[in-house]
Amino acid sequence: MSGNTPRSSPTIAVFDSGFVGLTVLRALLPLIPGAHYVYLGDTARLPYGAKSPQTVARYALSSAAFLLAQGAEMLVVACNTASALALDELQHALPIPVIGVIEPGVQAAASLLLPTPYSLLPASVLVLATAATVQSGAYSRACSALGIVAYEKACPLLVPLVEEGWTDHPVTAEVLRIYLTEALEAAPTVTTLVLGCTHYPLIKPLIERTLTALNHPMHIVDSASATAHAAAALLPASTSTTEPTCTFYATDSIEKFQRLGSAFLGQPLPAVHLIDLGG
Amino acid sequence: MSGNTPRSSPTIAVFDSGFVGLTVLRALLPLIPGAHYVYLGDTARLPYGAKSPQTVARYALSSAAFLLAQGAEMLVVACNTASALALDELQHALPIPVIGVIEPGVQAAASLLLPTPYSLLPASVLVLATAATVQSGAYSRACSALGIVAYEKACPLLVPLVEEGWTDHPVTAEVLRIYLTEALEAAPTVTTLVLGCTHYPLIKPLIERTLTALNHPMHIVDSASATAHAAAALLPASTSTTEPTCTFYATDSIEKFQRLGSAFLGQPLPAVHLIDLGG
Repeated sequence: MSGNTPRSSPTIAVFDSGFVGLTVLRALLPLIPGAHYVYLGDTARLPYGAKSPQTVARYALSSAAFLLAQGAEMLVVACNTASALALDELQHALPIPVIGVIEPGVQAAASLLLPTPYSLLPASVLVLATAATVQSGAYSRACSALGIVAYEKACPLLVPLVEEGWTDHPVTAEVLRIYLTEALEAAPTVTTLVLGCTHYPLIKPLIERTLTALNHPMHIVDSASATAHAAAALLPASTSTTEPTCTFYATDSIEKFQRLGSAFLGQPLPAVHLIDLGG
Repeated sequence: MSGNTPRSSPTIAVFDSGFVGLTVLRALLPLIPGAHYVYLGDTARLPYGAKSPQTVARYALSSAAFLLAQGAEMLVVACNTASALALDELQHALPIPVIGVIEPGVQAAASLLLPTPYSLLPASVLVLATAATVQSGAYSRACSALGIVAYEKACPLLVPLVEEGWTDHPVTAEVLRIYLTEALEAAPTVTTLVLGCTHYPLIKPLIERTLTALNHPMHIVDSASATAHAAAALLPASTSTTEPTCTFYATDSIEKFQRLGSAFLGQPLPAVHLIDLGG
């Protein structure tokens, strides 16, 4: 975190590789009313989940430079992969506060953990995420800073299944059964699950049903809400009575962005502007 | 197709968004020995399958410009999406022959169709492909030019399942059962199936087993081999006795490219060179 504290009605930039980060914007709107929001989906270069740290950092920095030029006074990185691989670079490069989704999610999980004074085992959480997020070790580091052990499980099929629309489908249930069984073999005592990817809240009901079927119910933390609260905590309490305004940019497929994005934002999207960040 | 006929030992460029197009290079090596091959995987910007025609064409043109600068005398586009969305632009922009995977695959399928002189129905094929390839209508146009009807089925989960390594897995079998059942409801009389994505040959045995279980065995056409034969047909018969040489380039993740690519090439890969095409 660097730079000055923004005003109570600032321009807040929200960045993701696609439109799924709109769930974070959706959580921000009621918490920071009166702000102007600038959302960028880097759809021409998505997904970030399978790319190298160097490439993800390069994409995130060029996206952030565009948002800064739009007057952003705070940047919310609504993408787990970019938060995992590029948050340090962004915080060093930008003169404004930069918030990722990982630390708020881990702090929300920590607040749910029961004290275990008589246990020899450290408190632990299970994190489901993309392969790149797991490989980055970002959740392990964030948990370790709070004295928590993170069991991370890479779930590469969940994003494609959500994008296929199979959010309540027997195949997705079977894939979840396989992933969660493997994860619980490694972490049989965990009671808290962090959804370490912005796509996963759409299958939260199916995850809950799968855990019940496995006789292993857990607290489930959705980091979109936790991230929005962390952003709001950086600002003075809002006294604005005006409605928030939003401007949307994408680097590809603005029609698809507008059509599919409204489900994640929870309201219709206005015009989406196509921009070229090169590449 | 444009430009001069290449020599019998030309520099042949092979281009894909990733390393799966190595299956096409693998098919080329024994057919055009003595050539020098330059392979480019645009891994920093993959996958192309969900992007707009304009963006895919932009990526393909910048990749082709790099390959031309390496001395390419023929370009083989070993990627169904780029073949579907950018072949015309590439053929217009480049002074060398450009071959895609779609027309050779369709021609191989046409050669397998039985003559149906007493049928009122036109001959037809079933094509499994990515969403972007299906939306482009490229297979329908290529089939229509030969008087064949193409039934196209978008199968967005198959690439992630192959990349998860679940090429012989009950979940993949169930996804195939769902996709093929839906496809055969629309096209109950087809007897020939075109694998319209370079990932799909890795699940060809599972596709065959699924079709048998559905009581609907079919001829299956793998366009990698058909494309290699189409490229060889453009060249004079080779008299070279030297071994082919290969140089590999990628725009991201050269370590992953080298590690996973050898399964698709069928032999170990030498050093892979990292290049930056911008973006």
